[in-house]
Amino acid sequence: MNDFDIKSAIRTVPHWPKPGIMFRDITTLIENPRAFRYCIDRFKEKYQPTGITKIAGIESRGFVFGAALALELGLPFVLIRKKGKLPAAVFAQEYALEYGVDKIEVHQNSITSGDRVLIVDDLLATGGTAMAACQLVEKCGGTIVGSAFVINLPELKGVEKLRKYNPFYLVEFAGE
Amino acid sequence: MNDFDIKSAIRTVPHWPKPGIMFRDITTLIENPRAFRYCIDRFKEKYQPTGITKIAGIESRGFVFGAALALELGLPFVLIRKKGKLPAAVFAQEYALEYGVDKIEVHQNSITSGDRVLIVDDLLATGGTAMAACQLVEKCGGTIVGSAFVINLPELKGVEKLRKYNPFYLVEFAGE
Repeated sequence: MNDFDIKSAIRTVPHWPKPGIMFRDITTLIENPRAFRYCIDRFKEKYQPTGITKIAGIESRGFVFGAALALELGLPFVLIRKKGKLPAAVFAQEYALEYGVDKIEVHQNSITSGDRVLIVDDLLATGGTAMAACQLVEKCGGTIVGSAFVINLPELKGVEKLRKYNPFYLVEFAGE
Repeated sequence: MNDFDIKSAIRTVPHWPKPGIMFRDITTLIENPRAFRYCIDRFKEKYQPTGITKIAGIESRGFVFGAALALELGLPFVLIRKKGKLPAAVFAQEYALEYGVDKIEVHQNSITSGDRVLIVDDLLATGGTAMAACQLVEKCGGTIVGSAFVINLPELKGVEKLRKYNPFYLVEFAGE
């Protein structure tokens, strides 16, 4: 299965969540077992040689790809969640929304110094959430080895924003 | 690794999210690769012979176990999400909260008649959300083969409530 095939497994929903937005929907991809397996195999092949020690997934579509990859690599899977969802002591990191700010959190004891961490999410847009996730890992004392996404939206320049965290993606959608 | 071991991998956080609640926290379990692998292997061994055609995970901790199991079994993974999160046409199902009601949704074309579906979530408490998820699958025309959980809280009687949907779990916590 090549890149074209997984791209065709992703559905575009026009004008969602608001007029003018072309939403790239990964539900059709994960409902296609060959496409889902292809994504995980590509990530595995890229990150297995890097000596990562933990995988952190961003709530909630990042849990789908992150958990599957963590199982496959036999690595700990860490949840990065929206505020107020984690029960024990957390570190928090704010990030800007279109209007206002939001916050993500991680358990303080989930990542420690010496950990080499891969961040996983389904889609890289402006990179705001992913950047906050990387900063959160660093607050815990961990090192970011890379950030992995299924989809990149190049027009939103997330790759430039995340440059120091080695962004990697499987497919791009630009002006389509 | 036996049942005792995965139970010991689950952290109990007292008085969260409110006084008197003993919260069973699976983040420590999924940060333990042997414990996470054990859960997925147990589910795999139970459901591989049943002829299920799809796995549906309940947002958002159900995504962690459901996605990993779907990858392992080579089956489509369907997201059951909180209201307003899915971009295409959905079926919705209400369920009762302690005060008021909430709603979960699934894409209408994600499950069709002839599908034999396994519902996956991390924890079975009163069974309200899981019951709504099963009803949602039936609205799509699918058949529920079973409902699988890592943890059961027997005092909340979810197993009785879900009886017709064949609930199965790996560990129980009662009055501890």
